[in-house]
Amino acid sequence: MSLLVIGSVALDTIRTPHGEAREVLGGSAVYFAVAASFLTAVRMIAVVGEDFGEGPLSQLRARGIDLSGLQVAAGRTFRWSGEYSDDLNQRSTIATHLNVFESFRPRFEPGDRNVSHLFLGNVDPDLQRFALNETKPALSACDTMNFWIEQKIDSIKRLLPAVSGLLVNESEVRLLAGEPNMFVAARRILDLGLRFLVVKRGQYGAALFVGGRYFAVPAYPVEKPIDPTGAGDSFAGGFMGHLARTGRDDAATLRQAMVYGAVLGSFSVEDFSIRRFALVTPQAIEARCADLRGFMSLDGSGT
Amino acid sequence: MSLLVIGSVALDTIRTPHGEAREVLGGSAVYFAVAASFLTAVRMIAVVGEDFGEGPLSQLRARGIDLSGLQVAAGRTFRWSGEYSDDLNQRSTIATHLNVFESFRPRFEPGDRNVSHLFLGNVDPDLQRFALNETKPALSACDTMNFWIEQKIDSIKRLLPAVSGLLVNESEVRLLAGEPNMFVAARRILDLGLRFLVVKRGQYGAALFVGGRYFAVPAYPVEKPIDPTGAGDSFAGGFMGHLARTGRDDAATLRQAMVYGAVLGSFSVEDFSIRRFALVTPQAIEARCADLRGFMSLDGSGT
Repeated sequence: MSLLVIGSVALDTIRTPHGEAREVLGGSAVYFAVAASFLTAVRMIAVVGEDFGEGPLSQLRARGIDLSGLQVAAGRTFRWSGEYSDDLNQRSTIATHLNVFESFRPRFEPGDRNVSHLFLGNVDPDLQRFALNETKPALSACDTMNFWIEQKIDSIKRLLPAVSGLLVNESEVRLLAGEPNMFVAARRILDLGLRFLVVKRGQYGAALFVGGRYFAVPAYPVEKPIDPTGAGDSFAGGFMGHLARTGRDDAATLRQAMVYGAVLGSFSVEDFSIRRFALVTPQAIEARCADLRGFMSLDGSGT
Repeated sequence: MSLLVIGSVALDTIRTPHGEAREVLGGSAVYFAVAASFLTAVRMIAVVGEDFGEGPLSQLRARGIDLSGLQVAAGRTFRWSGEYSDDLNQRSTIATHLNVFESFRPRFEPGDRNVSHLFLGNVDPDLQRFALNETKPALSACDTMNFWIEQKIDSIKRLLPAVSGLLVNESEVRLLAGEPNMFVAARRILDLGLRFLVVKRGQYGAALFVGGRYFAVPAYPVEKPIDPTGAGDSFAGGFMGHLARTGRDDAATLRQAMVYGAVLGSFSVEDFSIRRFALVTPQAIEARCADLRGFMSLDGSGT
């Protein structure tokens, strides 16, 4: 089994009520790969600029992530800066400079043609479909965002029947379906040809829709959230990492993958960038997963 | 086992994106008692005005609710009118006329002195404490609201060590604890001397804190919510109804009670006032409870 992620690598500048972090490692492929790396081998296809430097790279190498697909392009690395409200629930973007990410085109190696698991981070849906056609994975999932839903809805609707699953947040699923009720929206989106849909709900956990059935996982309790950036991508990394590790995609495995997603997401928000992951161990992940299973257990015991 | 509720009876005028209902039966004691009546015998102590009439009364009698503690006072019945936003998540009050509810003072009968279960709906915390002292139940729970937290925090802090549990919504638990994080806030409030705390989170379900442990129940999926008024009181009715019916209050029973709370709350929002409950059967409640247990089951099966 192998897990390939295609997405963004960015240098983020983030202000929250808990402080500020300048030019720290971020981007969907980074959070995803770091989270998934605790569960399975991960390879990343992404682009950085000539200014990226060795510091951020070494953080990714330390997690054993295969970086041979990381292109270094002439120009500057993608930069994003944003600010969070006091309760961390509202985010406003201060600046987005796509830089080298604007003309990013993934390049594949022969080994990518038989990858078992693929995650398409939030990039242009036409690029997502190109990557899917190039790799033909056994199981694939993608993310998207409001910008693409508003600009390229037809491209997304062509993409969805070709992927196994979609992971999006609650406002995105509503916008994509043109329907305010999450349950109705989920059914409409599954009808486009997806096998599963994951709706990420932040501090309220996440919902899984598969085979006409609904599953809800609560968020792992975080008493001191520092920075929500990347929580959704870390969730996706935990979720896809568990699927790749087990090589299964039955309903029970998808539900267990939701627990790993919630737990990897919970670590992500406990510090800026991917810093918190430097202190995470497989044992700490399993302990939180056992706790989380207990939080949803009707007999009051963990499983 | 017996269940007594003390709270408000109101005539509500409600506008939602789905329509308007004028002068319909509402109030915390009404929603609570109707929901609980599917699970156990309920007695209500409340007040109405001389204008209340037989129509609303017959709706309560049809549910077998003991109305011998319902006072009819000189004056008009409590009236509330409000309006909901398009997504039903925001509520604005148009008018509140307390009328006879302003000088409500519960009157008890000898039988109330050995009631096993008591729910103190959202009234003045001094009145809640008076009712608790008069009835000395084996298990009691109360609700409160922002108004009392802001006006009478000391009274609430005297009340809480005397009740078994508190059921409030998320913004109320934060306000009461003076702490934005729900998990930290919950711990602080339990430290005031409560055995359990239920945090109602609307469409995101509810959280239970008991004995240092956390439990989360998702909301039962409602595809066409019509009117959220009374959902929290209906939740409380289902929760307390299950506790009264079983006569138990161990951790597993409290968790099962959360499922009943979520299910009774889900019926409540499917029509204005208590209309939806006219079509509810014990079988329909059990079916939704089985579904809801399935939505949180890691092996994909209901229990």
